[in-house]
Amino acid sequence: MVDKKLYRLVNREAHSEYRGNSRTKVIKVSGVEIGGTRSVVIAGPCAVESREQTLEIARAVKQAGADMLRGGAYKPRTSPYEFQGLREKGLEILAEAKEKTGLPIVTEVMDPRLVGLVGQYADLLQIGSRNMQNFPLLVEVGRYNKPVLLKRGLCATLEEWLCSAEYIAKEGNTEIILCERGVRTAASGEYDRYTLDLNVITPAKISTFLPIIVDPSHSTGTAAMVPHASRAAISSGAQGLLIEAIGEHTDRKTIKCDEAQGIRPSTLKQIIDSIRV
Amino acid sequence: MVDKKLYRLVNREAHSEYRGNSRTKVIKVSGVEIGGTRSVVIAGPCAVESREQTLEIARAVKQAGADMLRGGAYKPRTSPYEFQGLREKGLEILAEAKEKTGLPIVTEVMDPRLVGLVGQYADLLQIGSRNMQNFPLLVEVGRYNKPVLLKRGLCATLEEWLCSAEYIAKEGNTEIILCERGVRTAASGEYDRYTLDLNVITPAKISTFLPIIVDPSHSTGTAAMVPHASRAAISSGAQGLLIEAIGEHTDRKTIKCDEAQGIRPSTLKQIIDSIRV
Amino acid sequence: MVDKKLYRLVNREAHSEYRGNSRTKVIKVSGVEIGGTRSVVIAGPCAVESREQTLEIARAVKQAGADMLRGGAYKPRTSPYEFQGLREKGLEILAEAKEKTGLPIVTEVMDPRLVGLVGQYADLLQIGSRNMQNFPLLVEVGRYNKPVLLKRGLCATLEEWLCSAEYIAKEGNTEIILCERGVRTAASGEYDRYTLDLNVITPAKISTFLPIIVDPSHSTGTAAMVPHASRAAISSGAQGLLIEAIGEHTDRKTIKCDEAQGIRPSTLKQIIDSIRV
Amino acid sequence: MVDKKLYRLVNREAHSEYRGNSRTKVIKVSGVEIGGTRSVVIAGPCAVESREQTLEIARAVKQAGADMLRGGAYKPRTSPYEFQGLREKGLEILAEAKEKTGLPIVTEVMDPRLVGLVGQYADLLQIGSRNMQNFPLLVEVGRYNKPVLLKRGLCATLEEWLCSAEYIAKEGNTEIILCERGVRTAASGEYDRYTLDLNVITPAKISTFLPIIVDPSHSTGTAAMVPHASRAAISSGAQGLLIEAIGEHTDRKTIKCDEAQGIRPSTLKQIIDSIRV
Repeated sequence: MVDKKLYRLVNREAHSEYRGNSRTKVIKVSGVEIGGTRSVVIAGPCAVESREQTLEIARAVKQAGADMLRGGAYKPRTSPYEFQGLREKGLEILAEAKEKTGLPIVTEVMDPRLVGLVGQYADLLQIGSRNMQNFPLLVEVGRYNKPVLLKRGLCATLEEWLCSAEYIAKEGNTEIILCERGVRTAASGEYDRYTLDLNVITPAKISTFLPIIVDPSHSTGTAAMVPHASRAAISSGAQGLLIEAIGEHTDRKTIKCDEAQGIRPSTLKQIIDSIRV
Repeated sequence: MVDKKLYRLVNREAHSEYRGNSRTKVIKVSGVEIGGTRSVVIAGPCAVESREQTLEIARAVKQAGADMLRGGAYKPRTSPYEFQGLREKGLEILAEAKEKTGLPIVTEVMDPRLVGLVGQYADLLQIGSRNMQNFPLLVEVGRYNKPVLLKRGLCATLEEWLCSAEYIAKEGNTEIILCERGVRTAASGEYDRYTLDLNVITPAKISTFLPIIVDPSHSTGTAAMVPHASRAAISSGAQGLLIEAIGEHTDRKTIKCDEAQGIRPSTLKQIIDSIRV
Repeated sequence: MVDKKLYRLVNREAHSEYRGNSRTKVIKVSGVEIGGTRSVVIAGPCAVESREQTLEIARAVKQAGADMLRGGAYKPRTSPYEFQGLREKGLEILAEAKEKTGLPIVTEVMDPRLVGLVGQYADLLQIGSRNMQNFPLLVEVGRYNKPVLLKRGLCATLEEWLCSAEYIAKEGNTEIILCERGVRTAASGEYDRYTLDLNVITPAKISTFLPIIVDPSHSTGTAAMVPHASRAAISSGAQGLLIEAIGEHTDRKTIKCDEAQGIRPSTLKQIIDSIRV
Repeated sequence: MVDKKLYRLVNREAHSEYRGNSRTKVIKVSGVEIGGTRSVVIAGPCAVESREQTLEIARAVKQAGADMLRGGAYKPRTSPYEFQGLREKGLEILAEAKEKTGLPIVTEVMDPRLVGLVGQYADLLQIGSRNMQNFPLLVEVGRYNKPVLLKRGLCATLEEWLCSAEYIAKEGNTEIILCERGVRTAASGEYDRYTLDLNVITPAKISTFLPIIVDPSHSTGTAAMVPHASRAAISSGAQGLLIEAIGEHTDRKTIKCDEAQGIRPSTLKQIIDSIRV
């Protein structure tokens, strides 16, 4: 589908074990397998805002059936006056949440100088959409020995996305999971934040053996749309979900980041139950 | 979600029976109900190319479980040198296919002067994407006593789409079914034809009581992508599918229109079986 | 640049007089030449709202230096509850404005059944963006003996645009002027209505010998942006402008259609003066 | 036009000297003023490929009338297998070119760890489109005492762009020049690389006092389109141009980066002559 000369190591055709079939690599994240037949669910708050909030949500998503905990300690925000995350303090809170629930941690790293620090706490290092073509950052996570979750850029082509994965792989790290999270289009912004591009999943799997999951939260931008988008993603062949969750009784007005899109743990449980039948 | 002043008759909030719930109107098309709990499948060739081709596909999609037969007699083609359809002869072939299979007919009308003629043969009059804002045509089908399938324009907003439905409703015809078929975006064209915008389904249902179905064929443009897109559409809340089908053994090179996207009846059966469990 | 098999008659390469040079066809509209070295300016109200309004603006744009009068009698509006135009009465007002000012008339035709009627009043028949792929309408204006102004569709490719011109040419009418008016993109809607795509002008001229003009009003959607867009269009190689104008002292709140984008005749004069030096 | 709470320091309304007028800040780059009445032209190779190539082009663009030399030493390339730039060696070549021609140097910095190094050589630090929301990088150039050229992201809104400028300003550096370089849309890719969005210039100037220039090379992607795009940019109110140039007799096939879009010095001279009349 895309120019094979631009990426090689993550190219399905370049590997005899994946050539001609539709299997994806199974990536183990502290005991959780992504890329096998079981759909993986990563859930948690948009941002780590406090110890209490994070521990409450961690316990709740664990109970709802989530496999990993997501939460941002370093937040890429449009304006410098928006909440930027608790940074290292946030990482420590995530470590405590992991200790208490056993859930592996997924958290974003934005700065090549912080890969080592964030990597001490994260089980899966997230590269956000805005950094999909931050090549020095890709090189650093490529040199680090932790799996990487590579989100698609806001208007990236499949070829660009796979080439970014190749930057990581070229440094020696092929433990990469792709994550579709919506693209900015003329249609987005009216009733959602980004247009969720589920059409990309089948061609991605034809082009690469890397597993692919979907973030239904950032695309829809509205909690009420997340269940449908989640089920549609799994129906499209996605191998997991990255979902934002809030407390069961949290007042949305008190949330510092993406307050409209987090779902309640009770809704999360319904989604998980429906995709695992 | 959208400006309520611009459309009224198709507005959920304007009708006490639909206000505050998520029910959609059930539209009966020659005995087939669209908008209830059962997913409806409309399948058939892109274009009616010959009597033999159409009858063969009609029988095959009937056997696969389809509820209605689609097929273009008047084709809106980008270039005047592309196959334009068999026109009235095509309508007669559709009539014979209906007689032989019992399947109601869905076919496109492009010209306000032909609504009466096409309406004699069609059970469901299709307005194509390029004509979503062909207002004289909308007025004519609004004055005709047949249900209308209104496809979303290539880059139409939800508001524009519902306003186009309002043009039909204002003339007295509220038997309207919406059809999402993909939007043109910066992401489309690399691995698909149009980006399938499943995010629109939930907001559409919040804004209007009209049922909504999805065309997975034109969006993906590739037969291999249709099954996933079909299941994702139903998972997203779509109430039916409009699918292009070809003969089980037809050589794609012999097809005059959209040759890459039609699926085989055996694949159609798998899709129908999976969405009706 | 685009597939030459899909359009032939409007293809530069197919005509020895245009092959290998950059000349465009000069189209005469009741004495005004479009496509030569002189930039043509078509100006007037969005819609003909009344005799007084139209005559006032007609005189003012004439005095400012405009070459033709534009004005909509049949208006394609998103909602059926928006002002739809004065229809035949509007055409009569345009005829009077022509009689009083000598300016040829440019007005839109939306319905294939009305080509004959609108054609009696129009010197240049406008096909609007929403109808760029209304093929029965293109065929009708192709059979009528008046020049045609073919606006680019809201998200049309250059190839689709030229194929639409070919539909007109194939019926015998090659007196066609192209008009770029902005495309809908992820960037449009924040500070403008549509993204003005001036990049299309040079490739259009390489592909076809038809002249091309630009509508800076619908793209920008704001009067204050029109002068810059007008000059940029001419700098990009456009051979004319289609500009919306309002009365010098008209209260914008009283305008029924696109009230923010019409410029004052004094501004029009400045634009015309600057592009004709 | 955009949310004033998200950016303050670069907000026109927040500064009494710029409030209510259309003046922009004049930024001095080693003696060259950007933001005044004179259009500034920055020209040079896409990438520094060799000492000879760079010195030749530097002399030629100087002679053609350019004010500054551009050239990439660190290149953000889609694939890791594409030419990545000569890095520090490239910076040294740029220093020699500056010494020989007197032209100030504009070059990109991609890595927050290299701001100090690149800053020793650059007179104007370029932040590329892919890094417009690389917030750690923005913070670093905000702390460095050199002017910054901030390119618009591939699908960035005006608000996002100004918020990114605010990240730089918040650290103490308000010597920022904006650069429009085309956005990715459904229209781009057929006859250009990106849709040049000249509509953004007027709203940008209404929202901020920062000067704005245009890169016509990356948007068009074709040398033959650069002159028109350049003149249109200046007609739209842009205060300068950032243009890729190649040697007068260079064989395009030998160029390692963006080989189709660089213009010859003779063409550059024509552009400069036409915009400075």
